[in-house]
Amino acid sequence: MSVLNGGSAGPLRDTGLLSPVRAGTPAEAAVSDEAWLQAMLDAEAALTRAQAGLGLVPPEAARTITRLARGELLDPRAVALTARETANPVVGLVQALSRLVEKEDPAAAEYVHRGSTSQDVLDTGTMLVAARTLRIIRSDLARAAAALAGLARDHRDTLMAGRTLTLHAVPTTFGLKAAGWRQLLQDADARLGQVLDGLPVSLGGAAGTLAGYLEYARIDGRAGTDTHVDAARHVAVLTEAFAAETGLSAGPALPWHALRSPVADLAAALAFTAGALGKMAVDVQSLARTEVGEVAEPTVAGRGASSAMPQKRNPVLATLMRSAALQVPVLAAGLTQCLVAEDERSAGAWHAEWLLLRECLRLTGGAAHTAVELAAGLQVRPERMRRNVALTGSALVSERLAAVLAPRLGKAAAKRLLTSATELAAGSDRPLPKVLAELPELTGAFDPDELARLCDPAHYTGAAGALVDRALSRP
Amino acid sequence: MSVLNGGSAGPLRDTGLLSPVRAGTPAEAAVSDEAWLQAMLDAEAALTRAQAGLGLVPPEAARTITRLARGELLDPRAVALTARETANPVVGLVQALSRLVEKEDPAAAEYVHRGSTSQDVLDTGTMLVAARTLRIIRSDLARAAAALAGLARDHRDTLMAGRTLTLHAVPTTFGLKAAGWRQLLQDADARLGQVLDGLPVSLGGAAGTLAGYLEYARIDGRAGTDTHVDAARHVAVLTEAFAAETGLSAGPALPWHALRSPVADLAAALAFTAGALGKMAVDVQSLARTEVGEVAEPTVAGRGASSAMPQKRNPVLATLMRSAALQVPVLAAGLTQCLVAEDERSAGAWHAEWLLLRECLRLTGGAAHTAVELAAGLQVRPERMRRNVALTGSALVSERLAAVLAPRLGKAAAKRLLTSATELAAGSDRPLPKVLAELPELTGAFDPDELARLCDPAHYTGAAGALVDRALSRP
Amino acid sequence: MSVLNGGSAGPLRDTGLLSPVRAGTPAEAAVSDEAWLQAMLDAEAALTRAQAGLGLVPPEAARTITRLARGELLDPRAVALTARETANPVVGLVQALSRLVEKEDPAAAEYVHRGSTSQDVLDTGTMLVAARTLRIIRSDLARAAAALAGLARDHRDTLMAGRTLTLHAVPTTFGLKAAGWRQLLQDADARLGQVLDGLPVSLGGAAGTLAGYLEYARIDGRAGTDTHVDAARHVAVLTEAFAAETGLSAGPALPWHALRSPVADLAAALAFTAGALGKMAVDVQSLARTEVGEVAEPTVAGRGASSAMPQKRNPVLATLMRSAALQVPVLAAGLTQCLVAEDERSAGAWHAEWLLLRECLRLTGGAAHTAVELAAGLQVRPERMRRNVALTGSALVSERLAAVLAPRLGKAAAKRLLTSATELAAGSDRPLPKVLAELPELTGAFDPDELARLCDPAHYTGAAGALVDRALSRP
Amino acid sequence: MSVLNGGSAGPLRDTGLLSPVRAGTPAEAAVSDEAWLQAMLDAEAALTRAQAGLGLVPPEAARTITRLARGELLDPRAVALTARETANPVVGLVQALSRLVEKEDPAAAEYVHRGSTSQDVLDTGTMLVAARTLRIIRSDLARAAAALAGLARDHRDTLMAGRTLTLHAVPTTFGLKAAGWRQLLQDADARLGQVLDGLPVSLGGAAGTLAGYLEYARIDGRAGTDTHVDAARHVAVLTEAFAAETGLSAGPALPWHALRSPVADLAAALAFTAGALGKMAVDVQSLARTEVGEVAEPTVAGRGASSAMPQKRNPVLATLMRSAALQVPVLAAGLTQCLVAEDERSAGAWHAEWLLLRECLRLTGGAAHTAVELAAGLQVRPERMRRNVALTGSALVSERLAAVLAPRLGKAAAKRLLTSATELAAGSDRPLPKVLAELPELTGAFDPDELARLCDPAHYTGAAGALVDRALSRP
Repeated sequence: MSVLNGGSAGPLRDTGLLSPVRAGTPAEAAVSDEAWLQAMLDAEAALTRAQAGLGLVPPEAARTITRLARGELLDPRAVALTARETANPVVGLVQALSRLVEKEDPAAAEYVHRGSTSQDVLDTGTMLVAARTLRIIRSDLARAAAALAGLARDHRDTLMAGRTLTLHAVPTTFGLKAAGWRQLLQDADARLGQVLDGLPVSLGGAAGTLAGYLEYARIDGRAGTDTHVDAARHVAVLTEAFAAETGLSAGPALPWHALRSPVADLAAALAFTAGALGKMAVDVQSLARTEVGEVAEPTVAGRGASSAMPQKRNPVLATLMRSAALQVPVLAAGLTQCLVAEDERSAGAWHAEWLLLRECLRLTGGAAHTAVELAAGLQVRPERMRRNVALTGSALVSERLAAVLAPRLGKAAAKRLLTSATELAAGSDRPLPKVLAELPELTGAFDPDELARLCDPAHYTGAAGALVDRALSRP
Repeated sequence: MSVLNGGSAGPLRDTGLLSPVRAGTPAEAAVSDEAWLQAMLDAEAALTRAQAGLGLVPPEAARTITRLARGELLDPRAVALTARETANPVVGLVQALSRLVEKEDPAAAEYVHRGSTSQDVLDTGTMLVAARTLRIIRSDLARAAAALAGLARDHRDTLMAGRTLTLHAVPTTFGLKAAGWRQLLQDADARLGQVLDGLPVSLGGAAGTLAGYLEYARIDGRAGTDTHVDAARHVAVLTEAFAAETGLSAGPALPWHALRSPVADLAAALAFTAGALGKMAVDVQSLARTEVGEVAEPTVAGRGASSAMPQKRNPVLATLMRSAALQVPVLAAGLTQCLVAEDERSAGAWHAEWLLLRECLRLTGGAAHTAVELAAGLQVRPERMRRNVALTGSALVSERLAAVLAPRLGKAAAKRLLTSATELAAGSDRPLPKVLAELPELTGAFDPDELARLCDPAHYTGAAGALVDRALSRP
Repeated sequence: MSVLNGGSAGPLRDTGLLSPVRAGTPAEAAVSDEAWLQAMLDAEAALTRAQAGLGLVPPEAARTITRLARGELLDPRAVALTARETANPVVGLVQALSRLVEKEDPAAAEYVHRGSTSQDVLDTGTMLVAARTLRIIRSDLARAAAALAGLARDHRDTLMAGRTLTLHAVPTTFGLKAAGWRQLLQDADARLGQVLDGLPVSLGGAAGTLAGYLEYARIDGRAGTDTHVDAARHVAVLTEAFAAETGLSAGPALPWHALRSPVADLAAALAFTAGALGKMAVDVQSLARTEVGEVAEPTVAGRGASSAMPQKRNPVLATLMRSAALQVPVLAAGLTQCLVAEDERSAGAWHAEWLLLRECLRLTGGAAHTAVELAAGLQVRPERMRRNVALTGSALVSERLAAVLAPRLGKAAAKRLLTSATELAAGSDRPLPKVLAELPELTGAFDPDELARLCDPAHYTGAAGALVDRALSRP
Repeated sequence: MSVLNGGSAGPLRDTGLLSPVRAGTPAEAAVSDEAWLQAMLDAEAALTRAQAGLGLVPPEAARTITRLARGELLDPRAVALTARETANPVVGLVQALSRLVEKEDPAAAEYVHRGSTSQDVLDTGTMLVAARTLRIIRSDLARAAAALAGLARDHRDTLMAGRTLTLHAVPTTFGLKAAGWRQLLQDADARLGQVLDGLPVSLGGAAGTLAGYLEYARIDGRAGTDTHVDAARHVAVLTEAFAAETGLSAGPALPWHALRSPVADLAAALAFTAGALGKMAVDVQSLARTEVGEVAEPTVAGRGASSAMPQKRNPVLATLMRSAALQVPVLAAGLTQCLVAEDERSAGAWHAEWLLLRECLRLTGGAAHTAVELAAGLQVRPERMRRNVALTGSALVSERLAAVLAPRLGKAAAKRLLTSATELAAGSDRPLPKVLAELPELTGAFDPDELARLCDPAHYTGAAGALVDRALSRP
């Protein structure tokens, strides 16, 4: 790829320069300024179609508005700048769209944003963007989970050291570790799925009473004259129609302008997902350390290169994933705090959500996309795992030996004995079975074969295999 | 209440001095050091009973251990201090419990913590504490929601100004506002309920393979001699038995020592709940401001007193609730980050959870408890609401007038006309209907009665009443 | 401004659509992808010039590299995308720059990035961006503070209600409030200034030992042959020369690749600044509420318009400022956490900094820019302040009356008496002096004139004026 | 230590059970409820003495109040519970103290809390607690830094692998690493020291105008009759006297009830410190991993024991330190957000500070205390470092070889050649010098001795030694 460029000042670009975890990924495109602008236009158009379906807007006008509600016909920067005057970009958006429509059909322009309010459009647009991005993320999580299922199956019985507080603890298998990563991604997917199913349209009007919509329904009603409008019924049918036109849910009982459950739920599910991906990332990093060397990232030409060190093959995928996991939870906390929104529309808490949510979406989406490649291409080195197990040797099964000796010596005495014996073995660089065989307390306790078997880490993986089976049986 | 005291150095106390939102509330007691210690002892006892039920521990021993697993028999400070040596309090707890049991029945002491690991006990104890506290919180949320339902019903049609970005926007009703608070608390309750249903026991052994449990099952098996143990089956039955003894769920497919979904889920649900309570709090504060005066906190002798100002009746309940809402989301972010836990047990991320989770539980629990009193005793002042509506007068329905004039003038022109007219009315201190009636553009547009009706805020509450009905119909 | 556009797919744009607080502000341009890319190129060029000054690089080569180190000659998106392969954008940047130089002068291309490492270039570029942006922010803070000084001076004695816990407490002046905002902005400026003075170059080489720089110094040394290089001296002079070429500080004793004080300091100072601006914003919002109406934002045509409500003039400047204050502290927390960076370069913590720091810079910068306009144009309404004071009336001085009566009645009894009297006055809608005059306990305590004077809030502003003078005397 | 206990229900205890990083440390005691209560009493007493010094309070009364302002004479739980009625504990504290004084000397009781307000007492008490704790932390940081200086000196030239993105990069020395930890702790100490020097008394009265203090000065003035009080002068002398009596600074120009710089500064400095300690912790953990084994925590009997695994010696000190580093930054973010405090006293933001600040103090203080032991007792294993260097062998100096070959081959070609050669060496398990010697491109380029020297990692530590010297020369 060439990085030379003819160049020109022009508008600012969003290249992902400072956020490589999402640069060039599908989530990035799904949440771009252009995409968000389009989603808000989609909301405007859908509202008009919904109103047309109820006989409140001429079908022709709805068609014209839908046809012209295209982001590429607007100047996003100009729309963005209007938001400094009105604290949100919808006022400018509506003006621009109205002008576009007016040129073609002045009568149709009357029906743009009819009865509506900025927040209905921005919130509905946001839910559309979120829905599109969540689908992308879930698809990537599913692909990553499938690859991990393969690793878990293939390495169901691949012996490795279980590590706690950075040290070898007892044996485990790589399959169990991979199954754990998969379970966490599945947990994340379940949470995202639940949120996705409920993402609602926003339809409340100026202050959550839908008064503007009702007023226009009265004015625009089929009879052509002032008609009585049944508020309860109209709210229900208009909301359902809007939901149907957007593909979103009709949502909670009440307009959610100042009841921000949908945003808080997104924040929680995205932070969970980023954290789940981060767990996989730090495990890969632990195992990829030069001295450990049990896994390596997929080899791709140029991947992992350093600007200084020719020999390096940095674990860049895990690094990018971890960088997202370090960012999303604090961003999500900012979103959760926006639940504390005063009045019928907060003067600031609503406005703080937009950027935070976008970053949560694209950082998490980028990390999920990265995880697919990492899971699919991860190089696993069973021989290195086995060699590392041998570093600790039988000390890795000292827990077992303590158990075996407990009936003979008492549990506490057995544990003390093993503590001394493993220290003695480590200090004198002799194998633990040897040391044990010579202890006077254990004279006659074991025959040598039995002791050797008890001391073999490969025979002390507990339920690792069974757990892998159980995990894989859950789709 | 007397605050004099004989006094003595003694141990440090946890009085809630710096955290009044939870001082003296049920949640505070439910998460105290004493309660947590007891919950860990409950976990130890339940494990032993579960093993006894499978024939692995003599029933007598399980009974003795259960009888002695009582926090008041231990010194919690001493247990706490051992945690500085071992990075968790369970090692010291097990030693202390073992010593207690040993004094009564040395054989039974062999069965304390059999095959187990610190994290199984601490995590299971934590889930017990969380379950107990969540039940308290949910009960308080239900009581607060019931009180809010009453307010929503009583004030279904109580006119008040809807406010957006701090300013009067269009009319709404107090009933709709109260219904919104209730809906948010119900949302919180639903999220807590879902988490509560899934709170799992922790059963993984030293590194998540349950090897120690299996080894002891082999040794302690009914035959009295070495027996083959079916790992898959034993894991399943032991986990089920442990769950049954604790009242917790059997949990996910895999041990969750390093797969921290349950903790992340608790964090998310608690942060949501604190935020939901915070929304209600800031609304009450907005409405209680001296100049607004539309609501007041319940009057209780001494409540809300100032140390300096005799006339003050501070909104202390809302203040306490808001203080929790400002704290819990960031604490919860810390918990979410602990998903990024390396290896089979993190060297730090696990340890960072305990304090954060406890504070999330008791701050949220305290806020929920406070909300009950606030909701039940809130004083609502409809006449003041009506007087405040009059401040803005017909400008509050300018949206409606713009709609009504849109067919005549075009939507944009109508909006411009109303902008000028409301400015003119405000500048000249004359009623908007008067100003409108004199505008040449509107000559003959309205008869005076119609104009008066259109300008009456009480006739422009949209679907507020219908929305209240809809919300209240959802239990 | 037109928001219509010819349109085209093309690259993603960064329009500020979701972040109006910074859209179009100087800080936005200062931290754009283009600006960051240029800053990294500036770092490369400065390094080469520094090496040339020490005789290690031919002056001609340094000039060529400096001339070609221009962002508009590169494709930022292409550079950004290379960062997915190498986890940072510098590897691709160096390749692109080398290719550009090579075309003109292959020999000069040998001196691009000589002895260097990605982190030196990215960190130094980041410090350049931060320095440029901090200067912008400080300039805006100074302008805002100057405007606030004017408000404090003009309203030194403008009576208003002091409010605590949302309620009228005792009288204060608007001048004291404005002086408080100014002091907080000055505090912010002092913290930014201190950080700015210390922003360092980054010069550590591959792992913080500068080995590459030393090796090339040996090779490239004046003698033209292998020369001994005094490490201590070379590190000192190269660092000083690099600092001089960039205008940054030479920095701490040790390379800071994994000792992230400069970034943590930036985070803290920016979060402080955003919070300080947020304090001013929420105060303006409190005072702008319809019922309070003591201040209003500057009137600009179209500013504050609503998409639905013709009469609205939303406090958009304060809203935008508050939106930043809600975001920056959590983003800054993410940065602070990156202090916990393992090894000589973290696999993720470093990478998490970039986006977070950029957002902290531009949100804070946007808020500061917004504050200038708010402070300069704030409309203050002394008559409304006085009218609001009258709402509470003499109850506002009940603290004073309690003090005056304390010598006669005892402090506690006096406070109790005032509590009852203010309740009685409020309940019966009679003036407090009247109520007091009739109390048997106070018979003969006051002559009516004295009582009237004591009850006048305008005579109970304490040291407000003196405090304003004191604050303004500090430049 | 025995962990058995007679037991009793009694009051809740704060044992540190869930926060072992601070259990039993000096910081824990310094911020306990008892200590905070005493600090508030100290503030009350100091205020009275300050007023007595100005002739406003009888010296006898000040002495009595000072003598009785002792926490052990009060019931802290009762005081804490009053805070639920008044949203802060000072109202109850003042009542309790007044009652104590009244019993001895009713006249003196009149002078308790004279002219004051809750926030002055709580904020001043908080600053006293903070000052005491910061002194403890700084002392521990100094001790840890001294121990690290020793390590840096002793291991100035101890070769080890520099690691970036988890992989061996180029050689470094352990001395440089220890010097880096020390520098970060010194940075933390400098930030704490700066904050400590400025910790101010709080003296503003009910709403920051000091009106109550002035009123009582008028009443209590020497003349015994109503006297004119010079507000500016009285504020200055009273504040100075209060500062002198407490040992705190007189503070900023204006009362800081709602200008929370001191708290935000504390938050920033404590988060920095916790992060700095966390950096040291994660490095120790990286180096302590079983496969790396380059350092080990100090050996103490029982330390690091596992409840399951006899052979474990967990790195508990680093684990505890890291647990603090994971918590403090998010807690500190909560504090920073409290800068956004509306009005003259926020209804919630002030109240949210107390718990968060206390936890920041004791978690950081606990971590600093833990660091002393870790730094002083850290076991360093140079032979293991050397063995690990050998794992990567000459690949560790591939950067150097690329530099050396650059003049011959061009920089880019040299780097490509080294990339291939290191891969070839790794793949064939042959030493890099061997592989290089056989490359046709390098025929005659090196004599074997020179090549051997160039390939020796011990000769490529760059300026590591010089940097250690430079760092250690800064006290």
